[in-house]
Amino acid sequence: MNEFAKRIQRLQDRLQEKRIDGCMITQNVDIYYFTGSMQTGYLFVPSAGEALFFVRRSVVRAQGEAAVRVEPLGSFRSFGDRLAEVYRALFEDAASSSRRLRLAAEFDVLPVQQLQRLEAVLPGAEWVDGSMIIRELRMIKSAAELACIREAARVIDLAFEDAVQTLRPGTTELELMSRIELFIRRQGHLGIMRMRGYNQEVITGMVGAGEAAAIPTYFDGPAGGQGLSAASPQSAGRRPIQPNEPILIDIGCCIEGYVIDQTRTAVIGNLPDDLVRAYDTSEQIIRSIEGRLQPGVVCEQLYMHSLQMAHEAELSEHFMGYGDDQVKFLGHGIGLEIDELPVLAKGFSYPLQPGMVIAIEPKFTFPGRGVVGIENSYVITENGFEKLTVTREGLIRL
Amino acid sequence: MNEFAKRIQRLQDRLQEKRIDGCMITQNVDIYYFTGSMQTGYLFVPSAGEALFFVRRSVVRAQGEAAVRVEPLGSFRSFGDRLAEVYRALFEDAASSSRRLRLAAEFDVLPVQQLQRLEAVLPGAEWVDGSMIIRELRMIKSAAELACIREAARVIDLAFEDAVQTLRPGTTELELMSRIELFIRRQGHLGIMRMRGYNQEVITGMVGAGEAAAIPTYFDGPAGGQGLSAASPQSAGRRPIQPNEPILIDIGCCIEGYVIDQTRTAVIGNLPDDLVRAYDTSEQIIRSIEGRLQPGVVCEQLYMHSLQMAHEAELSEHFMGYGDDQVKFLGHGIGLEIDELPVLAKGFSYPLQPGMVIAIEPKFTFPGRGVVGIENSYVITENGFEKLTVTREGLIRL
Repeated sequence: MNEFAKRIQRLQDRLQEKRIDGCMITQNVDIYYFTGSMQTGYLFVPSAGEALFFVRRSVVRAQGEAAVRVEPLGSFRSFGDRLAEVYRALFEDAASSSRRLRLAAEFDVLPVQQLQRLEAVLPGAEWVDGSMIIRELRMIKSAAELACIREAARVIDLAFEDAVQTLRPGTTELELMSRIELFIRRQGHLGIMRMRGYNQEVITGMVGAGEAAAIPTYFDGPAGGQGLSAASPQSAGRRPIQPNEPILIDIGCCIEGYVIDQTRTAVIGNLPDDLVRAYDTSEQIIRSIEGRLQPGVVCEQLYMHSLQMAHEAELSEHFMGYGDDQVKFLGHGIGLEIDELPVLAKGFSYPLQPGMVIAIEPKFTFPGRGVVGIENSYVITENGFEKLTVTREGLIRL
Repeated sequence: MNEFAKRIQRLQDRLQEKRIDGCMITQNVDIYYFTGSMQTGYLFVPSAGEALFFVRRSVVRAQGEAAVRVEPLGSFRSFGDRLAEVYRALFEDAASSSRRLRLAAEFDVLPVQQLQRLEAVLPGAEWVDGSMIIRELRMIKSAAELACIREAARVIDLAFEDAVQTLRPGTTELELMSRIELFIRRQGHLGIMRMRGYNQEVITGMVGAGEAAAIPTYFDGPAGGQGLSAASPQSAGRRPIQPNEPILIDIGCCIEGYVIDQTRTAVIGNLPDDLVRAYDTSEQIIRSIEGRLQPGVVCEQLYMHSLQMAHEAELSEHFMGYGDDQVKFLGHGIGLEIDELPVLAKGFSYPLQPGMVIAIEPKFTFPGRGVVGIENSYVITENGFEKLTVTREGLIRL
């Protein structure tokens, strides 16, 4: 059984457990995960039997890419009748037991209009949210997925070393970011890191120095950044980088669809003692978390442990953002998207499992002065973890 | 009255016309359009009275950016009670006439989960689709918006001239694209061009040459492109550009939130006669369309006119893509997003109005050989049009 067939089989197992008759997958990334193609259309996965990818555009290209059977979507108006015909047993089984067909869709990303269109062509169906099922399946990575993430880790390491080597007083954040982006783009970076969250955007991460890095923003991460304008209010701005201030380089790239996410802190000259101490605390936290990274450990506990360590270092107020703008997590899953499961945060009771890939990012924010911290990405293994990030650690003194 | 107050006033006029009590705006771009800030939260615009921006994150930053009053969102659970308290007259008016409060949201982009959350905190309300109201308001640009688009046009022209000057046989599409991206990024390009369409992504447009440019893809545009992999199946790939094949350079940038979109066709050496003729036809079409660009002309008629011209040139099969992969439009509105109204396509009966900004892109696709064409962006004026694109026209021979 090929990898895509296995993924679909696992989805079908979950659908059966939850007594859902089928799942209608529409989001580009989810379609890619289950088919190997990112053409537009509707991937219908019945609770049992063959999945079919009804493609709007491009049918020819989907036929060459997809691991599941491709059918031209044709007229959307007749899509409901078409499904009822192809999946007759499924539809008849529901009808014969006088119940509505129960179908799942990705309610976390599916726009309301799109659901209404589906409801119109399948008027007898009851729609339920299938997004957690899909996100939980995607949480565990295969060997092929890990290979892509390792390649992204290799590329971002080269880009990082290239970038810091040319960093001088007066280099602007945007110049530094542009150089990183050029490097990774030439290596095959997609140009963005895909995010699932509504209204969230990340181009290549966040490069920020001194007070600019500590400016809060809408972005759901511990460091905000000045950005270019109110129309792009995060990450790198046009401020020249100064000596003796922390330079936060929180970057990633997307290679073959898979992202990596890492952070290093650099300085031209020296940092004040209290910021060095905060940086050292971030490394102590990540080392202590590493000691707990093994199957069975509960995600929430890792977050609580980091809060405790920040508290003991008397840095609670600065941990993962400052004051009202603190974010309430220590790390997040990565894969095809930058905001995958699991999240290391309160309320996430997932036990760690082999194949989970998690970016862990203890950081400390000092308003008016900057952000320091570290972030590595890890895969959980049978016995513990493997660090995927290959970039050298420690405060990078330039 | 400032620009943002005028925008909100126009929205309120439309809400009153449609007997909608208020509009809950949640999408980052729409929030920016009405407030000048892109922080996350809920912008509530009642059909009459003061709009309020309930901000989740960052409140401090929103207070500094937004032209409307900002309130911390606080607990989402009590958001419904909060609204009922602040907009007591509105809620009581609905209650006293025994009708449900009628609220609009952006159903074209709002994920189902987000609507369900709103329904849960405002259980008495009836939700309707307000996306066309907002998209139609945004269709007409102000002087300030036009200034941003003109700046983007200036930047992309410089990037284009810089890029073609270094183009040599063997330069890959990705190298050419990376160079353009570096140039525009350093000038303040956001890094992507925002798109409203579900599953649609555009980083910096489409650079493709020869057969690679003619490969169809999911992207809703006339040229597809090979892309980097099945996980990024459009635009530039790694193929070296050859002499005597068409090089399609369909690019844009996003400056202060506003995009420009333009296409030029280049060649190292010479093109075969039939492709030169097709290119010339694209220029003839755009000249003929320019002759019709004035207030009152119906969008759909411009598209039908271009179909007619392609037919007369015996190039119908190649127009705007090839065969089954043809797209059914000639142009599209641009502004904060690359896929705005109006669309020059069948079924779009909007008459042109001063302030509309439209990218018009007649192109011809030859499978196995390439894509040729031209694209300019225009603003409709009182008497006709102004061309916003400043890049030199004609087939660019290198």
